[in-house]
Amino acid sequence: MSGAATPVPELAPPASIGDTLEQVDTPSLVVDLDAFEHNLRVMQDWADRSKVALRPHAKAHKCPEVALRQAALGARGVCVQKVSEALPFVAAGIRDIHVSNEVVGAAKLELLATLARQARISVCVDNAGNVADLSRAAARHDARIDVLVELDVGQGRCGVASATAALELARRIESLPGLRFAGLQAYHGTLQHRRGHAERAAACREAAARAKECARVLAEHDYACPIITGSGTGTAEFDAPGRVYTELQAGTYPFMDVDYGDNEWAGELRLRNSLFLLTTVMSTPTADRIVLDAGLKSTTIECGLPRLHEQPGLTYVAANDEHGVVRVAAGAVAPALGAKLLLVPSHCDPTFNLHDTLVATRGGVVEGLWPIAARGLSR
Amino acid sequence: MSGAATPVPELAPPASIGDTLEQVDTPSLVVDLDAFEHNLRVMQDWADRSKVALRPHAKAHKCPEVALRQAALGARGVCVQKVSEALPFVAAGIRDIHVSNEVVGAAKLELLATLARQARISVCVDNAGNVADLSRAAARHDARIDVLVELDVGQGRCGVASATAALELARRIESLPGLRFAGLQAYHGTLQHRRGHAERAAACREAAARAKECARVLAEHDYACPIITGSGTGTAEFDAPGRVYTELQAGTYPFMDVDYGDNEWAGELRLRNSLFLLTTVMSTPTADRIVLDAGLKSTTIECGLPRLHEQPGLTYVAANDEHGVVRVAAGAVAPALGAKLLLVPSHCDPTFNLHDTLVATRGGVVEGLWPIAARGLSR
Repeated sequence: MSGAATPVPELAPPASIGDTLEQVDTPSLVVDLDAFEHNLRVMQDWADRSKVALRPHAKAHKCPEVALRQAALGARGVCVQKVSEALPFVAAGIRDIHVSNEVVGAAKLELLATLARQARISVCVDNAGNVADLSRAAARHDARIDVLVELDVGQGRCGVASATAALELARRIESLPGLRFAGLQAYHGTLQHRRGHAERAAACREAAARAKECARVLAEHDYACPIITGSGTGTAEFDAPGRVYTELQAGTYPFMDVDYGDNEWAGELRLRNSLFLLTTVMSTPTADRIVLDAGLKSTTIECGLPRLHEQPGLTYVAANDEHGVVRVAAGAVAPALGAKLLLVPSHCDPTFNLHDTLVATRGGVVEGLWPIAARGLSR
Repeated sequence: MSGAATPVPELAPPASIGDTLEQVDTPSLVVDLDAFEHNLRVMQDWADRSKVALRPHAKAHKCPEVALRQAALGARGVCVQKVSEALPFVAAGIRDIHVSNEVVGAAKLELLATLARQARISVCVDNAGNVADLSRAAARHDARIDVLVELDVGQGRCGVASATAALELARRIESLPGLRFAGLQAYHGTLQHRRGHAERAAACREAAARAKECARVLAEHDYACPIITGSGTGTAEFDAPGRVYTELQAGTYPFMDVDYGDNEWAGELRLRNSLFLLTTVMSTPTADRIVLDAGLKSTTIECGLPRLHEQPGLTYVAANDEHGVVRVAAGAVAPALGAKLLLVPSHCDPTFNLHDTLVATRGGVVEGLWPIAARGLSR
């Protein structure tokens, strides 16, 4: 230790352009661009063939560089889940943003109305008082906000439960300044991970039928639904061709994760794992155990533990804050201290939310460092 | 939407000094300073009375403002779990930092040696090759690094398993330039949450006995252990008075969480919940269900779900990315749309890692906004 007034060093970026994976500091979230671009095309093609708009959910990745590439292929703007989350996407030039959620509270409504001066903004409602607050905020900013009534099609989270309640809200929306009734949000999150292909298909038909019936009742009363938004990576296959949804909110499809990988997939959507967590072997204490430098602060485990990529005989068995304990099966080759291994995260969305940078690679070489600019923006 | 080139707004801070909790934007991580300061004193007093140093673990909070208050009461520097995590603490003036972990990889060793020119730095080892790498990095920077041998006292994570192996590493450390053998780390993470008081006490005695025996063997060979570091919030009560550990690495004690709260606590350490997640009721779809604006991206659930603070009849039953679903028991008063509720996070450390700001309050009024400056620093 020296008493000199040397400045405290800055933390260097995790990689430089042209680095090989071996040279990337860890833990780092890494995307394989070939697989990523494949996935972007597969889902956009599927939406195009099904004549439905793709509005990718940006809560999955929180990364404007990803959204720009989705938009370039034909995506219709993005979804975000929180109003603050929209900021870096608007700043990056995305001009059509759906907040796929209710927005409650003065500061948040103020921000929403401000953004509606800069981009086409839509938002969900399930409460008449909230509609009135939304209108006042829009009026204050001389803004126009598209409003979707959220319909609970079986998830049991937010949303109104009946067509009657939806109709009442549609009337309220249309009666107030600054707002325009734009249709329905009919998202069913828990269906995304129903494992069986046929079971998932049947459940999707049921949810879509509820949305369709609600839209029918609204139309009877002269409230057309230009937008019926919903679906996700796990159900796009069934929702896209059904002629109920007008847009798909799939989020994880560019990346995939262990949880989605465990679904039973049929022929239509062949998505590849493009997202990995690069880690270092930081301890090799016994023949049957190694320890990685990536735990709960680099990959979340509410949907199960991450899996090792192409490492037969190695199983990630425990996540501590900053450690991943890996069991080495008898006969398997244990990696050496300092070796770099790839994990497949178990749950894409909250894992992105732990990282500031996505290291974009092709053929194992770094092509870009993409800021995960909406990381932490949950307000 | 207007085409004008208005700049995209900046996200305002979540609160201003003097705000009441009602005025704080959500989700926000909030500390109650009265309870926090009580906890700081309780643990420091306990360490002082037990004649053991308190070296609080900064991985729990990642917040230099917290570390400075711990140091002011008498704490001996801090622990961090990753070398990059040390940066904001060194920048804030903390000059004694223990990296309670192995540091593997060229970039990380380079940073460690750089920091050792600015602060007293100690680090753990469990591998002879790593000791050599560490020495080379220290020599390159003309730095001096204190090295602790990590002893596995039963957790089955990193560390050497025997006194013989520890002795071999101690010899290696002393033989190489830039390094000084400073003792042992004997941390047992899983003991922290053994629920029963007596059971936890017994397990602590066993772990401490292993550390003591190892130190005895080392002393026999003229390797004194000036430092034996370990323990945590859940075991400090047993480890402090045992005359084996010279310093306690407790991290969560200023805050507490659901997981630690579920331990059986005896008389010595009466710690209070000081950490809360402030949330807003964003949907009230049914009489028995409300939805909060805080889910997996604001509070982690690997140690169970968060609990509502002083809201009888309300149970947080499901965490989605940005939603918390709360069941309202029959007869309980359901909060109104827009109401602000406090949650007690289930696991302090990874929850801090989701937030950029700790809102410091006293008596429900904001006194400060403390940057969680090491948030995301897992390299």
